[in-house]
Amino acid sequence: MFNICVAQSGGPTAAINASLAGVYLQACSCSEINYIYGAINGINGVINDDMTELKRILISDYDTELLKKTPSTILGSCRFKLRKHTDDDTDYKAVTDTFLKHNIKMFFYIGGNDSMDTVMKLDGYFKEKGIDIKVIGVPKTIDNDVYETDHTPGFGSAAKYVATTMQEIIRDSRVYSIPSVTIVEIMGRDTGWLTASSCVLRSNGEPAPHLIYLPEAGFSAARFLDDVKKMQTRHMAVIIAVSEGITCDDENYTAGGFSSALTDAFGHKYLSGIGKYLEKIAAANLGCKVRSVELNVMQRCSSHIASLTDINESERIGRGAVNAAFNGESGVMMIFRRISNNPYRIEISTCDIKNTANRVRYFPKEWINNEQNKVTSDALNYFLPLIQGEPEIEFCNGIPVHFRLNQ
Amino acid sequence: MFNICVAQSGGPTAAINASLAGVYLQACSCSEINYIYGAINGINGVINDDMTELKRILISDYDTELLKKTPSTILGSCRFKLRKHTDDDTDYKAVTDTFLKHNIKMFFYIGGNDSMDTVMKLDGYFKEKGIDIKVIGVPKTIDNDVYETDHTPGFGSAAKYVATTMQEIIRDSRVYSIPSVTIVEIMGRDTGWLTASSCVLRSNGEPAPHLIYLPEAGFSAARFLDDVKKMQTRHMAVIIAVSEGITCDDENYTAGGFSSALTDAFGHKYLSGIGKYLEKIAAANLGCKVRSVELNVMQRCSSHIASLTDINESERIGRGAVNAAFNGESGVMMIFRRISNNPYRIEISTCDIKNTANRVRYFPKEWINNEQNKVTSDALNYFLPLIQGEPEIEFCNGIPVHFRLNQ
Repeated sequence: MFNICVAQSGGPTAAINASLAGVYLQACSCSEINYIYGAINGINGVINDDMTELKRILISDYDTELLKKTPSTILGSCRFKLRKHTDDDTDYKAVTDTFLKHNIKMFFYIGGNDSMDTVMKLDGYFKEKGIDIKVIGVPKTIDNDVYETDHTPGFGSAAKYVATTMQEIIRDSRVYSIPSVTIVEIMGRDTGWLTASSCVLRSNGEPAPHLIYLPEAGFSAARFLDDVKKMQTRHMAVIIAVSEGITCDDENYTAGGFSSALTDAFGHKYLSGIGKYLEKIAAANLGCKVRSVELNVMQRCSSHIASLTDINESERIGRGAVNAAFNGESGVMMIFRRISNNPYRIEISTCDIKNTANRVRYFPKEWINNEQNKVTSDALNYFLPLIQGEPEIEFCNGIPVHFRLNQ
Repeated sequence: MFNICVAQSGGPTAAINASLAGVYLQACSCSEINYIYGAINGINGVINDDMTELKRILISDYDTELLKKTPSTILGSCRFKLRKHTDDDTDYKAVTDTFLKHNIKMFFYIGGNDSMDTVMKLDGYFKEKGIDIKVIGVPKTIDNDVYETDHTPGFGSAAKYVATTMQEIIRDSRVYSIPSVTIVEIMGRDTGWLTASSCVLRSNGEPAPHLIYLPEAGFSAARFLDDVKKMQTRHMAVIIAVSEGITCDDENYTAGGFSSALTDAFGHKYLSGIGKYLEKIAAANLGCKVRSVELNVMQRCSSHIASLTDINESERIGRGAVNAAFNGESGVMMIFRRISNNPYRIEISTCDIKNTANRVRYFPKEWINNEQNKVTSDALNYFLPLIQGEPEIEFCNGIPVHFRLNQ
C-alpha cells in the first residue's frame, strides 16, 4: 500500500473540482492506495507539508457529487514558479521530503500551462535523482490555450456561461428603439478561444454577436469603428464580443491605461479594461448609446450554468490520470483526443509534458474570417459539443449548494 | 366584443414577459375580448399606432411558456414621460385616437415607478373626458422600490441571480491564500433592496458578504476602511456588497467621476462606478489585493437562474390585472399582499395609482444594523421566500431557448 497526493493550481474554473473528484474516486477504487492527500494551495502545500486527507473530508457519495458542481478549488490554489533545481533545489528537497515522509508515490497536479511547468520540473528532478514518484499533470483552464489536448477541462463550462449570458445581454440590449452598441469583454489573456466561442449562438439562429475580436487577429481602432458603422446599417443594437487580450494600433492605446505595467510571477501582464476603452472610442465617434460589460470572474466560476459535458469529462480525465500513473507513466499531461465530432466522441490519453509546458496554443488563424472580425463555421463545429448538457444543481433555500471545506 | 392593449416600459427584468403572458392568457380566456394588441416600445407604440396582434405571435402554449422564461421585453420598452395634458394634450389625443380606432377598452401598462406616472395621467385624462377606457398598472422592477406592493415582479429573479453569483464570487475569491478584498457592485438607483438581498446566503451558513452598504444608510469612506480592516482580522477574503446608489462623504467623491452629470427624462442620474471607486480607496489604504466586480445588466436579465416564485407571481399579477379591469377598476396598480411568511402566501390586489406613482419605497432603516454595514434577520426573512424555486429551462444546442419576436 502507498499514498498519493493531488493539488490544484492556477485560476479557478467551474470544473477543476470535478477533476479532483475524478482523481479521488479512481484512487478510492484502487486497493493499492491508502491515503489520498490534498495539498493546500497547490505546490506550496506540498513544500510546507500542509495537506489534508481527502477521505476524512469527502465522506459520502453526496460529498463528491457536490464537489463536482462546486466552482473554484476547494484545496486552494497558487501561482508559484519553481526555480530550476540546478539553480536552487530547496523547494525540490522540501517536496521530496513531504512525499517520502508520507509514503506518497504519485502526485497529480491539476492546473494550466504554468502548472505544467511544475510537473515537468518535478518529474525531471525525480528521474535525475532516481526517486520513484510519478508526476502527472491534469490540464484545466477556461482559456483553452494548452497544447496537445483538443480542449481543456473548464473551458466548456465557461463557454456555456458566455453563450447563455451573451444571449441575455442581447435580449437586454434590444429593449429600446434607439441605436446602441454593446461591447462584451471576455477573458483570455493571450488567446481568443473563449471570446470566439460566443459564435455558438448562431446555431440557434441568433446573428449576434455581430463582431468578434480576438488577440490572434489584427485589431485597429479605425477598422473597429468602420466595422461597427457597417453593422449599424443592419442592426439597431450592435453586439460585440472582444477578448481582454487584444492589442490595438491606436496611438492612445498604451496611454489609455487599460494595460497596466504589473506582471505576475510568470511574466504575464495583468490586462483589464479593453471594453471600457472601446466604449470610449465608440461613444466619441458614433454618437449613439454605447455600453460595455465585463463578464469578470463570473465567466470562470459560474457552476450553476456549467456544461455537463465539461463536468463529466473533467472527472474522466482526473480518473484517467490515476490510471496513467498505474501504467507507469510520469512527466506526462492528460489530454483529450477528439475521435469524432458527429457524434461527438473523445478519448483520454497522455502527452509528454515537454510538448505542452510553457507553450500557448492560439486560436487557429484559419478559423478567423478575412475581415478579422468573425469566426468561421469550423470554429462553431469545434465549440458546440463542448457546451452540451446541464448538471442537475441542488438548491437549498433557493441557492445552489456548494461543497465547502472551511466555513 | 372589444379589444385590449398591453405594453411594457422601463428597464428590463427577467419576469416582465411573464406578466405579459399573464395578461395575454387571462385575456384569451375572456369571451368578451377579441384582439389583444401589444404596443411596440411602451406608450410610444400607442401614440404612434405601432402595435402587434399578440394572438398572431403567441400561437401555441409552447410560445407562452417560452415567453415567461425570456428576459427583457419582447414588445420593446421606452423611457417616456407624458406631459400634463393641461400643458400639452397632443400625446393624450394620439393615445385616445389609437384606442378608439381599434376599439380598445382596456390598457395594461407593465412598468416601474415612472410607468405608473403614465397610468395615473392617462386614467385622469380619460375620466375627465368621460372616455370609458380602463387603465391598469402592473408593477415590475428589479429595484423593488414601488410603494404599496409587498415586492415587485422581477425582483425575486434578480435577487436569486445576485445570491447565486455572489456565492460563486465568494468561492472564487478564496482561491489564493493571500488577504484580499472583493467589492461587488449591485444595481439600485435610489434604494438598496437588491444589494441587501445578498444576505440570503446566511440561510445556508455562508457568512459573506461580510459588509453590505445601502443608499439608505450613511456611508463614509473612513468608516468603510475601518469596517474592512476589522473584517480582515477574521476573514482572509473579505467580500463586500455595495449598492451603486450609495452616496459618500469623501471629499474626492464628486471629483472621482463616478457619478456622471447625465440624467434621464425623469431627472434620474446615471450612476456607475462606485465599485471601482471603492476599489481604488481600498487598494491605496489596505495594501492587499482588491478587486471590484460589477454585476451590470446580467442581474436584470439572467432568466436562466430566475426565481420560479417570481415568474409564477409575475404571471398571476398580469392575470389579476385583467380581472381588475373587468371588475370596473381603473387608475389602479396591481399589488402583492403578503398574507403569511411561513408558509409564504400572497394575495393579489389593487391600490390607487396616486398612492404609488412617482414615489420611491426605500429599504426600511430598522432592517439596517447599528453599524450601518449589514442587514437584520427581518430582512433575511422578507427576502428568502422571493427567490424560491427554479423554472424548467429548455435548452437547444446547449443554450437556453428564448422567445423572439424578431430575428
